[in-house]
Amino acid sequence: MSRLKNDTFLRALLRQPVEYTPVWLMRQAGRYLPEYCETRRRAGSFLDLCKNPSLACEVTLQPLARYDLDAAILFSDILTVPDAMGLGLYFAEGEGPKFERPLREEWEIRALVAPDPYDHLRYVMDAVAEIRRALGNSVPLIGFSGSPFTLACYMIEGGASDDFRRVKTMLYDRPDLLHHILDVTTKSVINYLNAQIESGAQAVMIFDTWGGALSHRAYREFSLAYLERIVAGLTRERDGCIVPSIVFTKGGGQWLEDIAAIGCDAVGLDWTSSLAESRRRVADRVALQGNLDPIALFAKPEVVAAEARRVLDDFHSAGPGGGHVFNLGHGISQFTPPENVAALVNAVHEHSRNLRSRS
Amino acid sequence: MSRLKNDTFLRALLRQPVEYTPVWLMRQAGRYLPEYCETRRRAGSFLDLCKNPSLACEVTLQPLARYDLDAAILFSDILTVPDAMGLGLYFAEGEGPKFERPLREEWEIRALVAPDPYDHLRYVMDAVAEIRRALGNSVPLIGFSGSPFTLACYMIEGGASDDFRRVKTMLYDRPDLLHHILDVTTKSVINYLNAQIESGAQAVMIFDTWGGALSHRAYREFSLAYLERIVAGLTRERDGCIVPSIVFTKGGGQWLEDIAAIGCDAVGLDWTSSLAESRRRVADRVALQGNLDPIALFAKPEVVAAEARRVLDDFHSAGPGGGHVFNLGHGISQFTPPENVAALVNAVHEHSRNLRSRS
Repeated sequence: MSRLKNDTFLRALLRQPVEYTPVWLMRQAGRYLPEYCETRRRAGSFLDLCKNPSLACEVTLQPLARYDLDAAILFSDILTVPDAMGLGLYFAEGEGPKFERPLREEWEIRALVAPDPYDHLRYVMDAVAEIRRALGNSVPLIGFSGSPFTLACYMIEGGASDDFRRVKTMLYDRPDLLHHILDVTTKSVINYLNAQIESGAQAVMIFDTWGGALSHRAYREFSLAYLERIVAGLTRERDGCIVPSIVFTKGGGQWLEDIAAIGCDAVGLDWTSSLAESRRRVADRVALQGNLDPIALFAKPEVVAAEARRVLDDFHSAGPGGGHVFNLGHGISQFTPPENVAALVNAVHEHSRNLRSRS
Repeated sequence: MSRLKNDTFLRALLRQPVEYTPVWLMRQAGRYLPEYCETRRRAGSFLDLCKNPSLACEVTLQPLARYDLDAAILFSDILTVPDAMGLGLYFAEGEGPKFERPLREEWEIRALVAPDPYDHLRYVMDAVAEIRRALGNSVPLIGFSGSPFTLACYMIEGGASDDFRRVKTMLYDRPDLLHHILDVTTKSVINYLNAQIESGAQAVMIFDTWGGALSHRAYREFSLAYLERIVAGLTRERDGCIVPSIVFTKGGGQWLEDIAAIGCDAVGLDWTSSLAESRRRVADRVALQGNLDPIALFAKPEVVAAEARRVLDDFHSAGPGGGHVFNLGHGISQFTPPENVAALVNAVHEHSRNLRSRS
């Protein structure tokens, strides 16, 4: 870790002392950046961009050239794993991700096989390796995956859904089938994340985007139990450095104690949770990542800075110590004014240094 | 209250002893019922149906003819109040509610006036009175309104939104303007609900559908503070009977203690909260309403019944007493098989009687 010029992000995840609060943004390489849109035009489609390691590397680095961010995150999509399982990922214009062959029949579910990450997902590992080379020893690279339940939502629904009717009907009527999908997907995610670590990812994050749509009981059985298996299956150390893990269930604030107990190093929180209260609830046993409302970035720059300070003050009000990685509570909106991101990043660094010098 | 043949619902809201757990369903009069679709065809549009007291009465009673429900709820829309303010409510096919004249300019906001509920909302009061006559002394009638923040979302966005960009930008950049809208809307909602009570509503519910989209801090300032003002402004007694109030912030489970402290009789919960844990958190100081996942109604009838029993068991596991009104955690889906609603209602009544006889 000491080989990195800036390992603040990794230290914060491990609740080690840091000089300021590190910051990165979910979907920081994305459509709000004109240079991203330009590269994407050159690539063709979004999926062409994901599958081209050198272009994926290019867009991964773009936000770091503009802003003083403390981590890079692999440019990819959460649905690469089911795509590698043969479901045929595609993006219909303005409609989000879809699968050509969603899981509809029991035989299709029984035939699912965990993909070899070095075969059909080779392009991801090549991108990770290329990004690491390009980053040099500047900031750490985050690898990621969707959670088994979130992947299952798309695999069963065939795309985005506003009520998750198909996946939940299976959950209630055929829990055995859903558990089978989640089991194969869990093995796939473990292999996938470990291959990313092997290829150079220095921290990993699991995005449980839709776990918050479940009932409190179903969440534990159909999402959290699999997240726990994944965390237990991750490579813990690589090149003498710990590889921290972050688990983020959007809308999971009520279940924080349970999420914090699965063995991950950090828990992501959306903007509905108070960081101070969350710290007390988990007694600082994990680091916390978050949690500005991404829509706060539409305010005037001075208001953006003030809102960033409020998030830092909230965390700080529960006492010194703890581990905090500043982030949004969800991916950055494509309509965000890029100059407001600079105001945010600068406010986080400046105010968090001030808080430390005062206490 | 004693004049009602079945006042179980009202007693449960006031945490008085009941023989079984009362049940009603949000949006119980709706598109999943073929007879509703038939009446709506006769009415013309959805809004024509809302504005025709005798047809609104007809659809209000339809689910009670089919199922052994313990309350009726006025058939109406949460957006009648801003419509009466002159914003021009309409429903674009398959797109949900929209306003012809959303609030875009400061002068439009400054010109807002609380409508007289007996003038532009006369049709609602007529419907309430007609439904009360039609119900006789069978079960109580629930009146309702949208919460000020939820109404403001539609008034500012002009329709549904997936990121609430306009209303939140106003919240961050011009909180004074948003507070003005919320202030006028709060006065309107108090007048509107009190007129419903005057016209015959025996309990009232405030739907804060979008409060859960706010940050923990913004929720308190821009939604909960106004809910508290409304509850304080409600007529408490009518014809010698207490008129209980229910407050429901979808996605507000994390904030339950604060919601329970605003003076309402009951708090609605969606399916992400455990009822047992919620009872402990509020020390049974309010009744709880909820909280089956509406999508559980897509399972086989025996699974629907089992899921209903689990909700009752969850509540019951925190000990005897408390006040519980069984409901879904959100409105019933238009695609719900009607026969599954019968399985649900029967399971709630039967199992809750059993739980009481055992303890």
